[in-house]
Amino acid sequence: MEKLKKKKYEALLEPLLHELSDAARWIAETGQRLVVVFEGRDTAGKGGSIHMFANTLNPRQCRVVALSAPSDRERGQWYFQRYAEHLPATGEIVLFDRSWYNRAGVERVMGFCTEREAKDFLKNVPAFEKLLVDEGILLYKYWLCCDQEKQEERFEDRLNNPLRRWKLSPVDLAAREKYDDYTRAREEMLMATHTSYAPWTLVDFNNQAIGRLTLLRDLLDKLPDTKLPIPDVEWPPLKTKPGHERFQALQPIEHYDYDQDVEERDRNEDEAD
Amino acid sequence: MEKLKKKKYEALLEPLLHELSDAARWIAETGQRLVVVFEGRDTAGKGGSIHMFANTLNPRQCRVVALSAPSDRERGQWYFQRYAEHLPATGEIVLFDRSWYNRAGVERVMGFCTEREAKDFLKNVPAFEKLLVDEGILLYKYWLCCDQEKQEERFEDRLNNPLRRWKLSPVDLAAREKYDDYTRAREEMLMATHTSYAPWTLVDFNNQAIGRLTLLRDLLDKLPDTKLPIPDVEWPPLKTKPGHERFQALQPIEHYDYDQDVEERDRNEDEAD
Amino acid sequence: MEKLKKKKYEALLEPLLHELSDAARWIAETGQRLVVVFEGRDTAGKGGSIHMFANTLNPRQCRVVALSAPSDRERGQWYFQRYAEHLPATGEIVLFDRSWYNRAGVERVMGFCTEREAKDFLKNVPAFEKLLVDEGILLYKYWLCCDQEKQEERFEDRLNNPLRRWKLSPVDLAAREKYDDYTRAREEMLMATHTSYAPWTLVDFNNQAIGRLTLLRDLLDKLPDTKLPIPDVEWPPLKTKPGHERFQALQPIEHYDYDQDVEERDRNEDEAD
Amino acid sequence: MEKLKKKKYEALLEPLLHELSDAARWIAETGQRLVVVFEGRDTAGKGGSIHMFANTLNPRQCRVVALSAPSDRERGQWYFQRYAEHLPATGEIVLFDRSWYNRAGVERVMGFCTEREAKDFLKNVPAFEKLLVDEGILLYKYWLCCDQEKQEERFEDRLNNPLRRWKLSPVDLAAREKYDDYTRAREEMLMATHTSYAPWTLVDFNNQAIGRLTLLRDLLDKLPDTKLPIPDVEWPPLKTKPGHERFQALQPIEHYDYDQDVEERDRNEDEAD
Repeated sequence: MEKLKKKKYEALLEPLLHELSDAARWIAETGQRLVVVFEGRDTAGKGGSIHMFANTLNPRQCRVVALSAPSDRERGQWYFQRYAEHLPATGEIVLFDRSWYNRAGVERVMGFCTEREAKDFLKNVPAFEKLLVDEGILLYKYWLCCDQEKQEERFEDRLNNPLRRWKLSPVDLAAREKYDDYTRAREEMLMATHTSYAPWTLVDFNNQAIGRLTLLRDLLDKLPDTKLPIPDVEWPPLKTKPGHERFQALQPIEHYDYDQDVEERDRNEDEAD
Repeated sequence: MEKLKKKKYEALLEPLLHELSDAARWIAETGQRLVVVFEGRDTAGKGGSIHMFANTLNPRQCRVVALSAPSDRERGQWYFQRYAEHLPATGEIVLFDRSWYNRAGVERVMGFCTEREAKDFLKNVPAFEKLLVDEGILLYKYWLCCDQEKQEERFEDRLNNPLRRWKLSPVDLAAREKYDDYTRAREEMLMATHTSYAPWTLVDFNNQAIGRLTLLRDLLDKLPDTKLPIPDVEWPPLKTKPGHERFQALQPIEHYDYDQDVEERDRNEDEAD
Repeated sequence: MEKLKKKKYEALLEPLLHELSDAARWIAETGQRLVVVFEGRDTAGKGGSIHMFANTLNPRQCRVVALSAPSDRERGQWYFQRYAEHLPATGEIVLFDRSWYNRAGVERVMGFCTEREAKDFLKNVPAFEKLLVDEGILLYKYWLCCDQEKQEERFEDRLNNPLRRWKLSPVDLAAREKYDDYTRAREEMLMATHTSYAPWTLVDFNNQAIGRLTLLRDLLDKLPDTKLPIPDVEWPPLKTKPGHERFQALQPIEHYDYDQDVEERDRNEDEAD
Repeated sequence: MEKLKKKKYEALLEPLLHELSDAARWIAETGQRLVVVFEGRDTAGKGGSIHMFANTLNPRQCRVVALSAPSDRERGQWYFQRYAEHLPATGEIVLFDRSWYNRAGVERVMGFCTEREAKDFLKNVPAFEKLLVDEGILLYKYWLCCDQEKQEERFEDRLNNPLRRWKLSPVDLAAREKYDDYTRAREEMLMATHTSYAPWTLVDFNNQAIGRLTLLRDLLDKLPDTKLPIPDVEWPPLKTKPGHERFQALQPIEHYDYDQDVEERDRNEDEAD
């Protein structure tokens, strides 16, 4: 697959973000509720896809739900309970960074649940999702794919790039050899939970930039026509001359003196030689 | 102020993000709890600053709290109650995109609370924050400043850029003429709540890129030495040849055909001429 | 129906409470989850039935859930969401004092929801309950019946007895003439939601004491054999002489001097003559 | 202390419950918020006192908060966080069956927290409570006392009465020999947290009936004049003849046939001889 230059990517992304922004306005104004589930291979690109949404939308409208492992008490609750708590109210968008499908993927492959629990989950999840959809919640489920070669490359990047090191969890390490088990678990999950009312969409994320564009284009196409006129806003000139900041109690701190900082770093590095 | 080129900004930001990433690891490993409060002028740059953190850190460690207006029942609760619910547990970071200080700013200036409630709030908030700090919570409060001229420019950008239009709330419109009232409210807030244990830091955001660098540098300087060795990870070669995605139940969708899309858009535009 | 003397009632109740207490121990020790839904006519006796449980059981094991009207935000959530939040974890008992069935009863009869919403609810509730039951939650639903004559008597008691006056809500007043509408709504509810996995049990509460005994006997019969041996506890004599309360910082207050209080009340009443 | 006959107790209690009922109406109508903290010796009578309130008041107005041990995550939160979540909104009453004071009592005496944490707690709690009281929350704290002889009697009753056996926790067993340690911990707690704005009240519960009357009388005396006229209610005769229950979908179950049940039990006992 051809590589997409950053400039071109940004040029392509921008009109899609405009459509996303329109869609969010439509959701708010018509009182929709949108749930987007992000699942997929480790390293596929869930986080980056979610930032694409979250960096564009109003954080008071669009929440990211990234739950940690359940507490002991939560483990003893109705399985869907801790997810249900975070479902959107009218006008809201919720992005699930992993979701109830944990049980069909990592929990099953890594043995964090029993095979029986995994089977029960697969049997029950369509009923749960039907309840949501029947009440009018818009529910879209994306599964992000990539080949193991790409996965290994990205794992190594996480290994070597301290900025991304947190993305390399102990579970990832243990799961590295289980690429095929994950494939099998995914296929079984799709067989059981790809329904007419809550279908899955698989997106190839071997190229993440193209993956993100593809996912977003697809989501926008799934929504009905969301074009609403942007309301006019009266915008009279200010009645007074624009004010300046005036400080009494406390002054702003000095700007970050980056030139000095860079110099100092260079000097330190010289000294270290 | 000189303009900071995007390239240079990114080069300057990167080492700071590395330090931030180290700090997050230190917070997780030593069981700290970090609260960062983002307050300031409308348009100053709270959202962008928060994305700088959220795009770098693990969403299971770092949460953004951006509360909507309280419900009637919440309005009748202990004022700090709905914020207290979101305080970090051990190892966590919480970024408040606006906070309990709403009462000293927008609520007061716009008359959403009584003058008496605002005064009571200012009297009580140091005690509330002392409770948090005395229990070892790291609490840093940033107020982002900008001149009204900049604010007007950015309001107009929001007015004209549909991508940012959601940032222009009806309250913003009503507040436009109240720049000086906000200044007065801020000064009174600083007098009442700039304490030794929970001091405010004012950051000039007339230039947002420089503002973000300044804020982040300052926060990192406030933290103790957070340098912990990155743990070694054993990384043996895969035992099998890397697998490829194989699909049975469902195929990935086609890549977004952006060339066609662009062509079509051009054609539509031509036709529209 | 013969009247049941208080003495006899208490003698009959006691062995049932022992069985209830055994059942609660079984629930705790075997990690069950029990949900009991109390629905029925206004005045039928839900509150008294619930106290029979709550006064017997450990409040850390057995919670009463009596939700108020939803907030605007809750009204925009998934209908079952605010109820799902309160479902029991392992070892717990939850008593719903009214429940999700509000929508099929008071909301429908009084027009607080649309007819469409009521129909949708009736269609969806079996799927919701099946999810709970399929996960092993024990779910029992009781509907408490009484004739309108009894209801009127009890309404009048509430009207005249200040201790019970809070039980007479404005909705009750408005609903008084709608006895038959409630009957119709109940029948439709039963047709739609009396399922093999979550059956309803109707209990005649024209006599409340007998109603409570009947309900409790029925619930106990529905549970499997819950008899577990009460664990032995070592109970050595105290090693020291039993201590007495000794107060330094603060003394207990004087006992309520009821004789004086009664005298005074009598005197006041005399004076009032 | 003289024993109070049940009849007399009930006659004495009733007028107090009327006052309590008036107070609850005043709280609802004037938008007060009431918190009552119940602490004290094991077996003193917290549960019974709380039932006296809960059995009288509207469960939608008056909640009992009886928290279980914190989860690991909760243990890492701000200490007051999980209690703050349950504070009353306008018009509500919350009864804390044990409370944040756990840390000064059982946690400290049994070594579930460090001595340092207990000291910090004692230092911080007045500030926390001042925040609540300054915002107008009515906060009353009761500590229920009894001599160890009584405590032993009641422990033995719990040991032998299966209905009350759940009240005998493993911690109780371990704490039996620590009566004097609890006394010391209480005295230190009182020294640190008996403040002008949130004073403690000690009530002697060697006789529980008298203890409950004393506690309730005292609480009522602490409230301002709560007498509001009970609103008149129009109560026209029904327009139609009172309806009878008519069942189609499902019939009520048979009344509990207690005579047969008693007979059977007797027979079983005979056979057992």
